[in-house]
Amino acid sequence: MPLTPQQQIEIDEQRATVSTTGRATVAELEAILLQALPVLDHGFVRVVDYMGDDAAIVQAARVSYGRGTRRVQDDAGLIDYLMRHRHSTPFEMCEIKFHVKLPIFVARQWIRHRTANVNEISARYSVLDKEYYLPAPGQLAAQSSVNRQGRGEALPPERAAAVLGLLREDADRCYRHYEEMLDPDGAGLARELARINLTLATYTQWYWKIDLHNLFHFLALRADAHAQYEIRAYAEVMLEVVRRWVPLAYGAFIKNRLGAVTLSAPALAVVRRMLAGDPVEQPGSGLSPREWRELMAALNG
Amino acid sequence: MPLTPQQQIEIDEQRATVSTTGRATVAELEAILLQALPVLDHGFVRVVDYMGDDAAIVQAARVSYGRGTRRVQDDAGLIDYLMRHRHSTPFEMCEIKFHVKLPIFVARQWIRHRTANVNEISARYSVLDKEYYLPAPGQLAAQSSVNRQGRGEALPPERAAAVLGLLREDADRCYRHYEEMLDPDGAGLARELARINLTLATYTQWYWKIDLHNLFHFLALRADAHAQYEIRAYAEVMLEVVRRWVPLAYGAFIKNRLGAVTLSAPALAVVRRMLAGDPVEQPGSGLSPREWRELMAALNG
Amino acid sequence: MPLTPQQQIEIDEQRATVSTTGRATVAELEAILLQALPVLDHGFVRVVDYMGDDAAIVQAARVSYGRGTRRVQDDAGLIDYLMRHRHSTPFEMCEIKFHVKLPIFVARQWIRHRTANVNEISARYSVLDKEYYLPAPGQLAAQSSVNRQGRGEALPPERAAAVLGLLREDADRCYRHYEEMLDPDGAGLARELARINLTLATYTQWYWKIDLHNLFHFLALRADAHAQYEIRAYAEVMLEVVRRWVPLAYGAFIKNRLGAVTLSAPALAVVRRMLAGDPVEQPGSGLSPREWRELMAALNG
Amino acid sequence: MPLTPQQQIEIDEQRATVSTTGRATVAELEAILLQALPVLDHGFVRVVDYMGDDAAIVQAARVSYGRGTRRVQDDAGLIDYLMRHRHSTPFEMCEIKFHVKLPIFVARQWIRHRTANVNEISARYSVLDKEYYLPAPGQLAAQSSVNRQGRGEALPPERAAAVLGLLREDADRCYRHYEEMLDPDGAGLARELARINLTLATYTQWYWKIDLHNLFHFLALRADAHAQYEIRAYAEVMLEVVRRWVPLAYGAFIKNRLGAVTLSAPALAVVRRMLAGDPVEQPGSGLSPREWRELMAALNG
Repeated sequence: MPLTPQQQIEIDEQRATVSTTGRATVAELEAILLQALPVLDHGFVRVVDYMGDDAAIVQAARVSYGRGTRRVQDDAGLIDYLMRHRHSTPFEMCEIKFHVKLPIFVARQWIRHRTANVNEISARYSVLDKEYYLPAPGQLAAQSSVNRQGRGEALPPERAAAVLGLLREDADRCYRHYEEMLDPDGAGLARELARINLTLATYTQWYWKIDLHNLFHFLALRADAHAQYEIRAYAEVMLEVVRRWVPLAYGAFIKNRLGAVTLSAPALAVVRRMLAGDPVEQPGSGLSPREWRELMAALNG
Repeated sequence: MPLTPQQQIEIDEQRATVSTTGRATVAELEAILLQALPVLDHGFVRVVDYMGDDAAIVQAARVSYGRGTRRVQDDAGLIDYLMRHRHSTPFEMCEIKFHVKLPIFVARQWIRHRTANVNEISARYSVLDKEYYLPAPGQLAAQSSVNRQGRGEALPPERAAAVLGLLREDADRCYRHYEEMLDPDGAGLARELARINLTLATYTQWYWKIDLHNLFHFLALRADAHAQYEIRAYAEVMLEVVRRWVPLAYGAFIKNRLGAVTLSAPALAVVRRMLAGDPVEQPGSGLSPREWRELMAALNG
Repeated sequence: MPLTPQQQIEIDEQRATVSTTGRATVAELEAILLQALPVLDHGFVRVVDYMGDDAAIVQAARVSYGRGTRRVQDDAGLIDYLMRHRHSTPFEMCEIKFHVKLPIFVARQWIRHRTANVNEISARYSVLDKEYYLPAPGQLAAQSSVNRQGRGEALPPERAAAVLGLLREDADRCYRHYEEMLDPDGAGLARELARINLTLATYTQWYWKIDLHNLFHFLALRADAHAQYEIRAYAEVMLEVVRRWVPLAYGAFIKNRLGAVTLSAPALAVVRRMLAGDPVEQPGSGLSPREWRELMAALNG
Repeated sequence: MPLTPQQQIEIDEQRATVSTTGRATVAELEAILLQALPVLDHGFVRVVDYMGDDAAIVQAARVSYGRGTRRVQDDAGLIDYLMRHRHSTPFEMCEIKFHVKLPIFVARQWIRHRTANVNEISARYSVLDKEYYLPAPGQLAAQSSVNRQGRGEALPPERAAAVLGLLREDADRCYRHYEEMLDPDGAGLARELARINLTLATYTQWYWKIDLHNLFHFLALRADAHAQYEIRAYAEVMLEVVRRWVPLAYGAFIKNRLGAVTLSAPALAVVRRMLAGDPVEQPGSGLSPREWRELMAALNG
């Protein structure tokens, strides 16, 4: 359960407040506004605010006085065109703000996306909660033998249990000593020092605000199969948020980015030869074995 | 009149659409939402959308679950503290989107603020309207003799009239030839080429979106007495928009930025000597004559 | 001739100064350092400074203590991999600074690339030179009938001559009046006002500094066939600069970006069907007629 | 000792390579180029590359063809003026690249400065070294009672020893278990998971590249007395690097930024009253008690 009762009360109180506005409003997103959507064992993603909708993309692309075209058909076509031809600025005209609770090691990957606004809780100022990430047993996988950056097979159950035991014990002990060092009746160590004893599995929180173009860039990288599972779990929840918010832009993104493939010049040459009925094999293809594998994987789905 | 009847109709139609939302909403800003606030002879600023309010600044600074503090008093104190100590990230959590019509020479100064999102009408794609900026006679000033970048005295009326005549004639003739070159029954020149004949006084338009921190930075530079009058005219309208939108942040900005003065180390030393009753003059003050004048101007208001 | 004798002397003097350095140095780029490479009728691009080389990309990707790998073969493979998989940060570790002279309408397209540093001459502070862009007759083309943003056929000679006459006369008259308004013995108008009478064809200058990743993004858009000819002329000179500077990264860019094609999900499905021997036509392909044309153009080269 | 013998050899080999260049070169910075300047117990800062010098600031501000002014006197005056009036773009024309080894909790503060380029070693890809930060005993301080974000008095020796014991043991045990989980003959856990067991005191490394304007912003915040001691230790080493690199800009920064004080509108009003001989006390000053204390601290040095 990621929220305390007090936190849930604060959220519920805020959700109860409704105003009228002349701004673009998206009912399907309003339906989940402020709610904590759970991710991993203690994390969540909450949409705190948003600006714009699909029509706002069209409106900005046209620099129009009103709401752009009235027909969804036309908006969809234009948005697809903009996405396909990588016109990024109209998508920058939509903005979304999240409140996210996430393990520090995930936060360290996430923060590499610089075109966003961030306010993180400060462990110099506040004492962090006792919450740390423990992978579900099925997620405890061996180092991949083919990918230096990834996971391979799940560990056998007894090994997984041993690993989990170590992770839990260490996180636990580190947190206990953190509290002990902070204790004003004991050492009373400064918070900014005591926190260095915490592990990277500890949860932190932030407000994170980003425009739609840069969010798509984030999602293209972090919802990808090569991203670490833990950040991917957040990306997938956020993808679903985007689907609710800007369904036309979402569709164009899935079609032209997430589901698309880029062929390098020599890979394109190979495809042309294949289409001309020319039998092509990796040797003589102009592609390295690795590029050849990547191309075959793309062409065979 | 900056708007055509058709444009006014589109705006009015959009203004007539009201929704309910769970987002932070600011009634005083809603009151002018989408309206074209006139600037210069043909320009305007329209607030098209916004995200957040004063409480959203507090909420982000606290990474809180609810709406932050309930007492305006507390919010005001925290916002003032954040502004005074240049904590920029909480102010980045508010965002605003404008539709602006402005002369190209103003647009060229404006675009230098890079941390913003922009969609400008394309003169490759569309024919620009026949609208160009002509300074009001009182604005036609001589080159300043003390400031290489500024204006001095207003021109005598007959000189102002002559200048105005040249500006009008040239802008007019350039536009007429622009149309002539574009004429499909004549040269039918490509739009992307014909437009190079227009003068820098021609109006353009864009959607421009920025966060509150960067907007304050823009306003600190562009509402300043050293900014060119024409861009300052826009900045002043936008300052008033900010006052409606986030009155506490606006107050903190006026107090700690627009109305503040920075004393360099030697200027501070001079003030200390003066407060100690030590008679200080420029020679021996450690300040250059120019710095001395700047300091005296600050101290004497 | 883009340079005055005095400017050429200043450049030559600076070129005569040589130092020793422990930094990464690229002989092929040093050979053209500071030289004005001509573009259009009065413009130029000068490389004023640079940081890093191909090895610096590898060094950053590896966070290494020394110069990264010693074998060019290994560096080439890693750089190609980084480019193919859109790892952008190692390319950000190289930086280049240009001095560019360019028409204002080109500068207005160029400045849209925000992740760069710019210092432009100020027409509030200085009087601009009498230099404006006149297209070569072969560049005076009609509006394209198929592309709302582009050029079609060249104008017939007599029409081109008429257009050129208008452009020249108007630029000339506008500049003459600019000088007249500035004349301290006449109106003595402030420079910041007089300049609004100049046309968009007037040349300006700036120092422009950017990292290699963002330069590649600029070049991918501006060396593209859809970019306006005039900015493409600059991009092509800069591409050649990049080839001298970082030949491995340049090669990877040509192979994986400039010469590459992105297939959307439905376009990929069409290619798969074609490779399986399934006869596919636009109706029933899942692609719009426009997308179909784009795909066929890509597949047929 | 922050470097292994092998690392020192790689650095020495690279330092032995010297080239000639036509670029701006700074002898005082070349003298320490590539050297690891020690910070904290295992960290360092190494200048890996740089672009520009004091003259490059002047050159960009003037958009000049040559090296700007020849007289140091003139350059100093212009640079001081630019800094005093917050003209940021000329300072952006200098760039520097560091290789930094730093504890993760410091890296997390550092990375908040977004206008920089970063390549960090990946703990998904590599096994991190067994190096973690342990504060020197004199640095083990109690939580400040007046500043919620800072340190107060040093702990008494026996308490400091106890704290140090906990920090060392936990970091040690966590690292041992990290190795155990990674052991291919044991669990063989994926690196991306095993690393979550490490504490925030663990050292990481990155290449970090930034322009001089943004570096000054970083240093203004991180060399400040309110910054945490550990990041301040890095900032102070980097300040000294800047002094070697661009002594005029450094001087202007110390004078107009680090050593300067900003007076809010009401604080300025108080100073004016005091200079007029008006006895002012906090009640009736228009300042809060906290603002009053801040002002008195500034005025009394």
